[in-house]
Amino acid sequence: MKKIGKTYIFELPPLIIGSAGVAGKKEGEGPLGDDFDMVFEDTTMGQDSFELAESAMLHDAIIRALESANVSPKDVDFVMTGDLLDQCTGSCFALKDLEMPFIGMYGACSTMALTLCNSAMLVSAGANICVAGASSHFASSERQFRYPLEYGGQRPPTAQWTVTGAGCAVVQNQRNIDPENLQNAVKISAVHIGTITDLGIKDANNMGAAMAPAAARTIADFLHDTQTKPEDYDLILTGDLGLTGSKLLFELLQEDSEIDIETQHKDCGTMIFNLAEQDVNSGGSGCGCSASVFCSHIMKNIKNGTLKKVLFVATGALMSPTSTKQGQSIPGIAHAVLLEK
Amino acid sequence: MKKIGKTYIFELPPLIIGSAGVAGKKEGEGPLGDDFDMVFEDTTMGQDSFELAESAMLHDAIIRALESANVSPKDVDFVMTGDLLDQCTGSCFALKDLEMPFIGMYGACSTMALTLCNSAMLVSAGANICVAGASSHFASSERQFRYPLEYGGQRPPTAQWTVTGAGCAVVQNQRNIDPENLQNAVKISAVHIGTITDLGIKDANNMGAAMAPAAARTIADFLHDTQTKPEDYDLILTGDLGLTGSKLLFELLQEDSEIDIETQHKDCGTMIFNLAEQDVNSGGSGCGCSASVFCSHIMKNIKNGTLKKVLFVATGALMSPTSTKQGQSIPGIAHAVLLEK
Repeated sequence: MKKIGKTYIFELPPLIIGSAGVAGKKEGEGPLGDDFDMVFEDTTMGQDSFELAESAMLHDAIIRALESANVSPKDVDFVMTGDLLDQCTGSCFALKDLEMPFIGMYGACSTMALTLCNSAMLVSAGANICVAGASSHFASSERQFRYPLEYGGQRPPTAQWTVTGAGCAVVQNQRNIDPENLQNAVKISAVHIGTITDLGIKDANNMGAAMAPAAARTIADFLHDTQTKPEDYDLILTGDLGLTGSKLLFELLQEDSEIDIETQHKDCGTMIFNLAEQDVNSGGSGCGCSASVFCSHIMKNIKNGTLKKVLFVATGALMSPTSTKQGQSIPGIAHAVLLEK
Repeated sequence: MKKIGKTYIFELPPLIIGSAGVAGKKEGEGPLGDDFDMVFEDTTMGQDSFELAESAMLHDAIIRALESANVSPKDVDFVMTGDLLDQCTGSCFALKDLEMPFIGMYGACSTMALTLCNSAMLVSAGANICVAGASSHFASSERQFRYPLEYGGQRPPTAQWTVTGAGCAVVQNQRNIDPENLQNAVKISAVHIGTITDLGIKDANNMGAAMAPAAARTIADFLHDTQTKPEDYDLILTGDLGLTGSKLLFELLQEDSEIDIETQHKDCGTMIFNLAEQDVNSGGSGCGCSASVFCSHIMKNIKNGTLKKVLFVATGALMSPTSTKQGQSIPGIAHAVLLEK
């Protein structure tokens, strides 16, 4: 891979040969419901806790992604996933019986892009098959980050709704690809690992505002490094800035860099729900938001040719309930992946 | 890099060109006190909380490691660190003002080996300089995982003492190395990402027992993959199995694989404290245990020729207070790095 600025371009792009995005009942009732590879009406997944339900959902997404790529767990060199639960137990318990070498990653809601970036780079280093994924669950997040579900806490309009969902993508080295998989494969042409950006936002009910500066920085840097313009992309997809964060992203890019991405931009957080009807305030959030949307709806549209060149920029708010209670700001990060048919 | 079994051998080994291990007062009073690059008498680090103190300690280790390698933060391609705090805020707040592209990782107490493995592979993919690190803090861990410090909870003999410390290593691509750095550099000859291993241990006061099966598996697999014997190593260094876990490791390796590593084995958790005098029960633990010991004491002994071939196997217990309260077992993992002068 070749470095330009902070962006890495692959001479031999790693390929996504399979993916799956799964989601819960509420997400299934949203605009992308038909595109998910599975919608679980029972979001307990038959488990004893919401935490184990999240693990079960990620486990399901991994199995579906491997099936779609026709890959067995024993052929996977590395699986890298992450989630929002304390000590990343969403991932640890999802992976524990799958017998794949496990790289635990943490990028808050940017995790899907982070694991895709790292997978692509490890393939570039010589690995054959890497698996990237992420998950979140409304019920496990709500009680960990906010209030017990039974409390019914009120939310301001800037708040977002943690998505119950998981996504997983299988990345293979182009050198070893089965010709059968080639025509449906999606190229990872470039990756860009973000730098933490903190403009001092402290409101844990306004993650969009905390993450927008990181997204603006990564997008501006990526366009600068690759000498491209927003018009060169069919889609610039942010993770989960929601309505509030997306508006701030436009303003920041316009003011700081005179870049206008409004025509090309969509946000997984505003796509996954019908904001006018589903009572999710500023939109969806959580690692599972961009993971489930990217690995199902977006991948399907790249594969069928509707989207030819997509810049996927997932964003994360690097806080914890403890750091918020201690009055700390919310550092943001955004990682980018360039995808082409 | 070349794959043999689950082990990756580097044709052109990435080099550790600088490192630093820092620790708290109690660790400074232990047998390795003189080898730490810094011992902080005031483990609050002048911060408002123990969580921020942990971040400040990791920040310090990173700066010292970069200085020892004569590298500026702006020349770092990727920094990857992790810790035990909820949502990895130890790392996020340590890194937030350093302006380096950040890859968040989670491997519980195996994190130092995990970040070293990933750093080496990203260098193998074409990155120039990667920074790997990890931290833990007794006071931030104690109140998050166990009891408020003021409560003075009693511990069984199998319990371990979370190390207040951090370590950081700077890994460079051999192609680009400054000749001045070459003679002090340490080669990363091979890496091995572990697979989660869970034999059903549920006692959160016996992490050694939870992690020993993963360590045994990784060591047996590594020796098998590389067709080597324990005698081929000057040191087989586990992360923080403590007394209990180390004993179980010997038994498991002997029974399952007829491998005897007792002569070559040491454990960071039993090295860092004087177990007879420092009241730490089974020994030290936490990401900062193997990180601070490896990045100071061990690196110094490889550089001065005392140790020529070291297999570093850090171990992690992939649980959270929530998973333990829900009655779940503690999955273990162990990642290995082969280091040579």
